[in-house]
Amino acid sequence: MATLHHYPLCPHSRFIRLVLGEFGMEAELIEERVWERRREFLEINTAGTTPVFSEENGFAVPGSGPIAEYLDETRGLALAERRLLPEGPKERVEVRRLLDWFNLKFNDEITQPLVVEKVMKRFMGRDEGGGPPEMSAIRAARANVRYHLRYIAWLTAKRNWLAGEKLSYADLAAAAHLSCVDYLGDVPWEEDEAARAWYARIKSRPSFRPLLSDRVPGMAPSAHYDNLDF
Amino acid sequence: MATLHHYPLCPHSRFIRLVLGEFGMEAELIEERVWERRREFLEINTAGTTPVFSEENGFAVPGSGPIAEYLDETRGLALAERRLLPEGPKERVEVRRLLDWFNLKFNDEITQPLVVEKVMKRFMGRDEGGGPPEMSAIRAARANVRYHLRYIAWLTAKRNWLAGEKLSYADLAAAAHLSCVDYLGDVPWEEDEAARAWYARIKSRPSFRPLLSDRVPGMAPSAHYDNLDF
Repeated sequence: MATLHHYPLCPHSRFIRLVLGEFGMEAELIEERVWERRREFLEINTAGTTPVFSEENGFAVPGSGPIAEYLDETRGLALAERRLLPEGPKERVEVRRLLDWFNLKFNDEITQPLVVEKVMKRFMGRDEGGGPPEMSAIRAARANVRYHLRYIAWLTAKRNWLAGEKLSYADLAAAAHLSCVDYLGDVPWEEDEAARAWYARIKSRPSFRPLLSDRVPGMAPSAHYDNLDF
Repeated sequence: MATLHHYPLCPHSRFIRLVLGEFGMEAELIEERVWERRREFLEINTAGTTPVFSEENGFAVPGSGPIAEYLDETRGLALAERRLLPEGPKERVEVRRLLDWFNLKFNDEITQPLVVEKVMKRFMGRDEGGGPPEMSAIRAARANVRYHLRYIAWLTAKRNWLAGEKLSYADLAAAAHLSCVDYLGDVPWEEDEAARAWYARIKSRPSFRPLLSDRVPGMAPSAHYDNLDF
């Protein structure tokens, strides 16, 4: 069976778990605490980051961007009308632009600081960067969520899904990030009905179910985290 | 003519300038000071980042990753044996893995802090984040260059170019980042003969020439910056 080295609240890992779910692929999940810098893990990904997807034959693909492109190249055509990276070069630009938007910009401004400060630092040793959370980083990240919700609302006012008429990698990446932030209770859903309606559509997909049953030891998710009707 | 919104010491812009050079494409360069957040620029790239490649018909592609994929999809076959993103899915994984290595990891650890602290802050207004450089960030970035040089040396000991036997996007991205750091005089080339030999090969390509004539007002490049023999 294929495997996926992941971390439960790593948004890039979650993006690929959603992608695998949409492809109907099973993969054994192996939890990786990247800050421990395990030697066997560094051998399959020198960069030391999650996720890493490995084929049954051992061929390893590190990084959510390379994994998404690889799965599209090797299995995308089989999805036919449900392909997650569309055919046309212009449509692909729009999906990849939004992948950068969420996987780089949203990640830097929101997901990465929140997950590091609120989750990872609890489990890291002192010499691994652990310790109490930095409140200023958390406050800045929380403030940034708002304009990203407005951007999602603006996109879905023009289109059925974020990058166009069909569900694409862009929706799955955006939802993966928001699901981490939502676990931590930091998405002000009540402020944006349109963004919330888009998220409710994604959240009710079967591919989303495994994410909703993730639990971080000692940290319960927000009350509505796994409520499909919010 | 096509256009490229860029910033001279933006490594992502330099990567695409090298790519356009290898494709034999001409594009009008438009310098963009991203921190000014020009309204017309935000209209073609909401994320407000360089580079943005625009076709003569106005179709805009923002971000070095999406641009590289788009150029390969629309013009890659014409390069035949010199294609910069190879044919096979496994070979493509290796190129994209290294693109992430340089465009994300090297960028976060080295290029971004050095260019922001040493260059951009000189031109930014107080309210845009300008001011004196933070020396601790500069020192950390300088220390990080070393292991990246060793990684380049390790790769080129096994292969002709970084991702395999042929020149690829991986070499151009790596060289783009190093060229920014080299402009600032922060690459300890004397410490790694193999990495230096690889860089000398890239630096002597015709596609590299325009980068070597870039000058930042009031900041001369390091003495060997445009010396093809170092």
